[in-house]
Amino acid sequence: MGKNAIVGQSGGPTAVINASLAGVYESCKERGAEKVYGMMYGVSGLLERQFCILDEKLKVPMDIELLKRTPSSYLGSCRYKLPDWHTQDGEKIYKQLFTILEELEIGCFFYIGGNDSMDTIDKLSAYGAHAKSEIRFIGIPKTIDNDLMVTDHTPGYGSAAKYIGVVMKEIIRDSTVYDIKSVTIVEIMGRNAGWLTAAAALAESNDCEGADMICLPEVPFDMELFIEKVAELQKKKKSLVIAVSEGIKLEDGRYVCELADDDHKTDVFGHKSLTGTGRFLADTLARHLDTKTRAIELSTLQRCASHAASGTDIAEAYQVGAAAAKAAFEGHTGDMVALIRTTHTPYQCTTELHPIREIANLEKTVPVEWIKKDFMGMTQDFISYASPLIQAELPPYYVAGLPHHIYLADK
Amino acid sequence: MGKNAIVGQSGGPTAVINASLAGVYESCKERGAEKVYGMMYGVSGLLERQFCILDEKLKVPMDIELLKRTPSSYLGSCRYKLPDWHTQDGEKIYKQLFTILEELEIGCFFYIGGNDSMDTIDKLSAYGAHAKSEIRFIGIPKTIDNDLMVTDHTPGYGSAAKYIGVVMKEIIRDSTVYDIKSVTIVEIMGRNAGWLTAAAALAESNDCEGADMICLPEVPFDMELFIEKVAELQKKKKSLVIAVSEGIKLEDGRYVCELADDDHKTDVFGHKSLTGTGRFLADTLARHLDTKTRAIELSTLQRCASHAASGTDIAEAYQVGAAAAKAAFEGHTGDMVALIRTTHTPYQCTTELHPIREIANLEKTVPVEWIKKDFMGMTQDFISYASPLIQAELPPYYVAGLPHHIYLADK
Repeated sequence: MGKNAIVGQSGGPTAVINASLAGVYESCKERGAEKVYGMMYGVSGLLERQFCILDEKLKVPMDIELLKRTPSSYLGSCRYKLPDWHTQDGEKIYKQLFTILEELEIGCFFYIGGNDSMDTIDKLSAYGAHAKSEIRFIGIPKTIDNDLMVTDHTPGYGSAAKYIGVVMKEIIRDSTVYDIKSVTIVEIMGRNAGWLTAAAALAESNDCEGADMICLPEVPFDMELFIEKVAELQKKKKSLVIAVSEGIKLEDGRYVCELADDDHKTDVFGHKSLTGTGRFLADTLARHLDTKTRAIELSTLQRCASHAASGTDIAEAYQVGAAAAKAAFEGHTGDMVALIRTTHTPYQCTTELHPIREIANLEKTVPVEWIKKDFMGMTQDFISYASPLIQAELPPYYVAGLPHHIYLADK
Repeated sequence: MGKNAIVGQSGGPTAVINASLAGVYESCKERGAEKVYGMMYGVSGLLERQFCILDEKLKVPMDIELLKRTPSSYLGSCRYKLPDWHTQDGEKIYKQLFTILEELEIGCFFYIGGNDSMDTIDKLSAYGAHAKSEIRFIGIPKTIDNDLMVTDHTPGYGSAAKYIGVVMKEIIRDSTVYDIKSVTIVEIMGRNAGWLTAAAALAESNDCEGADMICLPEVPFDMELFIEKVAELQKKKKSLVIAVSEGIKLEDGRYVCELADDDHKTDVFGHKSLTGTGRFLADTLARHLDTKTRAIELSTLQRCASHAASGTDIAEAYQVGAAAAKAAFEGHTGDMVALIRTTHTPYQCTTELHPIREIANLEKTVPVEWIKKDFMGMTQDFISYASPLIQAELPPYYVAGLPHHIYLADK
């Protein structure tokens, strides 16, 4: 086996993806990796020979602590889809990649990412087997969307859910301050899975009224019913706060935001870029009802707010990174590390390996039985599932009043 | 003098307006106020006899600690402009208000708010003098906008500035993660004064590149120059993050956001509601340059993010509330408590009283000599001014993973 390891980060950033990087790095070093390389900008950068030696960057224990507290991908990221290696043009790319990996004497290859990144690991391990390479490929789950199969939840989700809980409580306090009719629509990320929007339900507690309505993409959106429910709720309570997923769709499959704007771009994986759902709903309500409305888009902050990260999430993100290194050094390849909840109360979670083929390119959505009828929120089953994931805090190191990060300047 | 006191909160919420409420309450009780009433929804609610007895709400020391950590106005707020009392219809309102105050045996009246709220104190104290009332009226500054005259800064600004610094650092890490050309426009509140947007400059440090451009309303916005500068900067650095004030205006006085949309509503004080500046600039850049763009609107979170409040700001907000009570009990009326910076290094600040007439309805903008040419950011003078205001943290009490608040359910 090659004496070195390499690790990359891919897809959208999270608050804790660097904690997984720290876990991979420390676990590889402990297991005797001579050098641990970092791909710059994922596989896409690696193809252009953009990499660094992490041993030269992470020199003191404080660097590891800062990695746990720094949002986004320390190494940079990409949204690059590997071609099919069965085609001639496709195979060229793989040959190029494996040549670089062999030059660097890589024994273990780690990729931290979501669905699309697991597709990369799937293809690389399949091509590796075909080419009789000894390199081991392990996937490390990461996505705020929580939409990966097999794993109980994905690292990154807990922190995004905690951030959503924190800001929903603050937005509810802010939005109910005037004695006038108002509807605040909070637009939350999530293309087809409503896990993030569902987290708005965590705000309800003895010191907070909670969200008044929650709209997930798992349930077809009915505009008439929505307006009717808002009017009904406003009879009893002047200020409403409603959480909606950017990805809510009509019965006929059209995204709600498409009703407002036909100019929706598509990314390399064929995903539509969705924004404007909240604004569109706010405008629609203002036209139909006698109420002030406001749309708030949580935007990228829900994935990068390390200053409000979940301590549990950071610990688990580190854990899956470290478990991935263990798996690779023990000879596994083509697997992803999954989180398995062993008990609910008290919450306990461990890691397991799963063939990546069972995971890549599939999406796990919110069970519809966890969603209350008529946009009325989430059931206790969801709360029991999500609540443990937002527990505990690992506050930033504040320097001159702001959180201190670790930063790869020569990226 | 009436044996009781009354306090109200008015205008837009902040992260620390409740710390001022705590300061007023504790200082009034210490000085012998029998009861401290809270106006519900400011003067507007008081006119409808909506009030509570704070002594019945704030029973244990923990309630005061929670007030310091709860965003928005505990008592509710209003945007109500008192009429001119020289007119017959106008005077009716004042008579009505003073009747209620006399019934409640009020000796001291406190109003925590911004420019428009100081106008209320100005009018009430003038009418009080005219009507030979013994009630003392004191204004307590509060606004994230930092646009009040006389006071060195306003409570609420430090926390908003800290929040902007925190999220700018996180957005910069998030937005520079891909190896592609991109421009992220962060739209920040501020109608005519750029204090909040200027706070984006605080993000720059040895672990952060900082904002690439900062556009304030104090400097006429030149679209051609803006596009030119972006193109120039992108030659050296692919991903740019730009902070813009919602209130930037062209040389001819039109708001930039008006170029996109003529449907701008006006509030009761005649202020235009400004949003869409960031989105408009992002769309314009995408049309003119070969770059991905994204607009992020910080929206209400910049005024209600108590979870990232400045410890200094919380302490000062409490201090001005307490100083207001002292002033009223010592016989002052028609004054506002101002913060006076006595020394810069070390930062030290004290309170002084100023006639409210010198303050109400005036706006303090950012000195243009603190703004670098061509949107290139803020000078060291601004950093030295703003940096002390974001220092220290007073973290929330986290309960079940989320910040705990104090909540007036029967409001």
